[in-house]
Amino acid sequence: MTRASTTYPSGRVTLREVGLRDGLQLTTRFPSTEAKKRWLAQERAAGVRHFEVGSFLPPSRFPQFSDVREIVKEAATSDIFSTALVLNDRGARDAIETTVNEIVVVVSATEEHSLANMNKSRAEALEFLRRTRALADASAEGPMVSVGISMAFGCSIAGNVETVEVLRLIGKSLEGGAEVISIADTVGFAGPRQVEALTDLAVRECGDTPVVVHLHDTRGMGMANAAAAMNSGARVLDGSLGGLGGCPFAPGATGNAVFEDLVFLCERMGFSTGIDVDALCATRSILAEEMPEEKLFGSIARAGPPSMISWAA
Amino acid sequence: MTRASTTYPSGRVTLREVGLRDGLQLTTRFPSTEAKKRWLAQERAAGVRHFEVGSFLPPSRFPQFSDVREIVKEAATSDIFSTALVLNDRGARDAIETTVNEIVVVVSATEEHSLANMNKSRAEALEFLRRTRALADASAEGPMVSVGISMAFGCSIAGNVETVEVLRLIGKSLEGGAEVISIADTVGFAGPRQVEALTDLAVRECGDTPVVVHLHDTRGMGMANAAAAMNSGARVLDGSLGGLGGCPFAPGATGNAVFEDLVFLCERMGFSTGIDVDALCATRSILAEEMPEEKLFGSIARAGPPSMISWAA
Repeated sequence: MTRASTTYPSGRVTLREVGLRDGLQLTTRFPSTEAKKRWLAQERAAGVRHFEVGSFLPPSRFPQFSDVREIVKEAATSDIFSTALVLNDRGARDAIETTVNEIVVVVSATEEHSLANMNKSRAEALEFLRRTRALADASAEGPMVSVGISMAFGCSIAGNVETVEVLRLIGKSLEGGAEVISIADTVGFAGPRQVEALTDLAVRECGDTPVVVHLHDTRGMGMANAAAAMNSGARVLDGSLGGLGGCPFAPGATGNAVFEDLVFLCERMGFSTGIDVDALCATRSILAEEMPEEKLFGSIARAGPPSMISWAA
Repeated sequence: MTRASTTYPSGRVTLREVGLRDGLQLTTRFPSTEAKKRWLAQERAAGVRHFEVGSFLPPSRFPQFSDVREIVKEAATSDIFSTALVLNDRGARDAIETTVNEIVVVVSATEEHSLANMNKSRAEALEFLRRTRALADASAEGPMVSVGISMAFGCSIAGNVETVEVLRLIGKSLEGGAEVISIADTVGFAGPRQVEALTDLAVRECGDTPVVVHLHDTRGMGMANAAAAMNSGARVLDGSLGGLGGCPFAPGATGNAVFEDLVFLCERMGFSTGIDVDALCATRSILAEEMPEEKLFGSIARAGPPSMISWAA
C-alpha cells in the first residue's frame, strides 16, 4: 500500500470537490475567506472529505487564492484531505511549507498548450515535477505529489490529442515521481467512448497508482463521461459544487462536472460516496450569496433525489 | 425485414424529436400551428427525420394537440416519419384515419400508475393494444403500432419496478402486436447501470423488433443513460429540443433528454446522425419566441461544438 492508495482506495469511489480551486480559477468575484471556511465545513458535514482548496500563485494576479494558506490550515483542523495546485518552484516551496496533503503539478498533453498556459515546455514541466517531488520528500511531512495531464482528451489550441502521447506523458510522470495521475478533459471535448478507452489504458499504465478523471461539462457530457470513467476502473473523480468554473470564452457554458449530480450518479451506479445529497445541495446557498453573478448548474439540486425508489448505494 | 426495422435500421442510430408531443404534454402555453410547422421544417432542414408530432386526445383537455391532424399532414408533405400517441379507441380510430406513420400505445410498468394515469389496468391497456393493432391492420395503409412501457425504471407512484415485470410486459406487448417497443424513464429515476441492464435484456427479448429508449433528464442522468442504452445495443433514442417537457411537480427540472446534446453524444460515440448540430440549435429560437416562459436546457447550444478537434462520426 502506498500513501496514495490509502488516500484513494481502489475498493471505492472518491469524489473530490474542486470548486475552491478550479471553480474559482477564472472568476473575478470570489467568496470571502470566511465563506470559503463555511463552504468547507458545510460540505464536510455533508460527508465530503477531499477538496482542492486553491493554488499557490502570485496573489497580485490571482487574488482569489491569496488566502490559500489559511484555507489549507482550516482544512487541517478536521479530517479533510486537501490538494492544491502549484505552477512554479516558488509555489511548490510555499505549498510544501504548509500542511497541504497533496500538491498537483500540471503537465499539458500538448506542447502548444504547455507553452501558452505555463510558459514551459512539457520537458520543463516534467523537470519541475522531479524537483518538486525531491523537495517534498526532503520535507519532514511533505505532501504527496500528483500530476494532472491537462487537455488529455483534446486541446483547444493544438486540436486532437493522440492517446499514445498521453500514455507517454503518464509514463514520464510516473518516472518523475507522480504518486497520483489525473487525466483532464480541460475544455469539455471528450465523449464517453474516448473516456472509456483512455481511462482503461491509463489505469493499466498506472498499476497501483490511483487515476483521477477530471471532467468538465462544457458540452453536457460530464455525467456520461464520469460513468464511462468508472466503467473503465477509475475510482477518483473531480467535480465542483454547482458546476462552478465556466469558461470566459464560452459565456454561459458549464464548468466542471457538477459535484452534486456526480454524487447521485455514483450512488445510482452502486458506488457509495458517504455524501448526503440534500445537505450537499444546501451548501449551494453559500455560492449564491457570495457569487450572485455566477450561474449555478446541476439537476439534482433542482429536482431533488427520487423519493419513491431506493437509489442510494 | 419488418417495416419497423426498415424505419429504425439496427445498423445506425435513429434520434426521434419528441418535443412536439412529450415536450408539450404538460405546458399551458404552446406554439401556434404555424410555428409548429416551422419547427418541423427547420429541424428537417438540419437533418432530423423522426418526430413525435402530437397526441390524439380531446382538444378540450389538451388544446396543445388540437392541431395534431394538421401537423401530421404537414409532416407527410416531406420525408418526415411521424409518430403520435393514442390513449383510447376514439384516438386510435382518429389517428388511423390520418397519414401518421406510427401510433404509440402506453403500457405502464406498474398497475398503480396505469390506473392513475389512464384509468386502465395494464391488462386493459394490452387489450387496447390488440384492438388498435387490428384496427390499424384493417386500414389500407395503416400505421405501425408501437408500445411505450412507461415508468420502466421506477415509478413515481409505486416506487421500485422489477425488471422481470418490465420484461413480462414487453413479452405481452409483442404478443399483442407491438412492432416497436419503447422503455421509458418517465420521471428521470434511472441510472446508467440500470439502463444498461434493462436495455440489454429488452434488446434480447425483442429480437428483430426495434427497442427505443426514452429518457428524461430530470436528475441530470440523460446523457449518461443514453450512452448506457447505446452500449447495450439500443439504436433508437428520444429527446426533445431544449429538453422541453419539464415536470410541473419539480419546478425548474429538466424534461426530456436534450435532443441537441444527444446528437453531439452520438457523433462523439461514433454514431453518425446526419444532423447538423448548429442548424438544430438555431431551431431553439422558435421555442424561445413561442414559449418565452419555458426554460430551455442543453449545453451544446450554449458552448457550441468543439472547433479544434474532429468530433463528428
